[in-house]
Amino acid sequence: MAGTSDCIFCKIVSGTFAANVVLDVDDAVAFLDIAPLADGHTLLIPKQHYETISEMPTGEAARFLGVLPKLAAAVQEATGAAGFNVLQANGSVAGQVVNHVHFHIIPRDSDDGLGFRWNSKSYNQGAAEVLRDRIKGALSR
Amino acid sequence: MAGTSDCIFCKIVSGTFAANVVLDVDDAVAFLDIAPLADGHTLLIPKQHYETISEMPTGEAARFLGVLPKLAAAVQEATGAAGFNVLQANGSVAGQVVNHVHFHIIPRDSDDGLGFRWNSKSYNQGAAEVLRDRIKGALSR
Repeated sequence: MAGTSDCIFCKIVSGTFAANVVLDVDDAVAFLDIAPLADGHTLLIPKQHYETISEMPTGEAARFLGVLPKLAAAVQEATGAAGFNVLQANGSVAGQVVNHVHFHIIPRDSDDGLGFRWNSKSYNQGAAEVLRDRIKGALSR
Repeated sequence: MAGTSDCIFCKIVSGTFAANVVLDVDDAVAFLDIAPLADGHTLLIPKQHYETISEMPTGEAARFLGVLPKLAAAVQEATGAAGFNVLQANGSVAGQVVNHVHFHIIPRDSDDGLGFRWNSKSYNQGAAEVLRDRIKGALSR
């Protein structure tokens, strides 16, 4: 939670940096992305500064993310988009640029040119079970 | 909430379809994606059937998504990934294939070949403010 004085999203929360804010509630603020991937591309952020989602306490994450359904529905209604993606990046390797947790709501339409460069694969025999147990182990600590 | 008897994710919740489950709590289940984009690619779903995130009641979304930080941290710890993306699709136009709300946790590493086909743009003068007010209007209803 260091360095919040340098954080552009903290400045939007405090009102010292201008943004097109669409929602301002106890734990969360939402505003239009300044470099939208589509009209109405909106960012939902917690007011408190956390760098990644994994740093957020459960209750705080719950309160912050509880607004996502209504916000996403409003973005879709306002834009008339056929669908939308919710996207969040943790770490520069994942495409995170601003180090303050933010969820993108990205309106989607057919032939919008947006999308993913994903290639799915399959696990070797037994590899999935090893990973499953490793994740369960990490969760139980 | 119709069609749950045909829903593969509802079958995973009820245990009638096998999956590598890593988390099973009151409102949510998480399991390894059967066609992973990366080792440890995990899906977090609400036990209750909703087609899109915008259909979920606030409280239910909050409880379901409150587990995301701990789950994501466990996936990252178990895989040793440098970062991760959280991704969710609403509507076939957004890439949704299974019509039961699911959040992907996708471990990321440098040169993993994954990514986005996004091109950001800018708003014409005044267009952002119009959209902002339209979203605020939709939220206030």
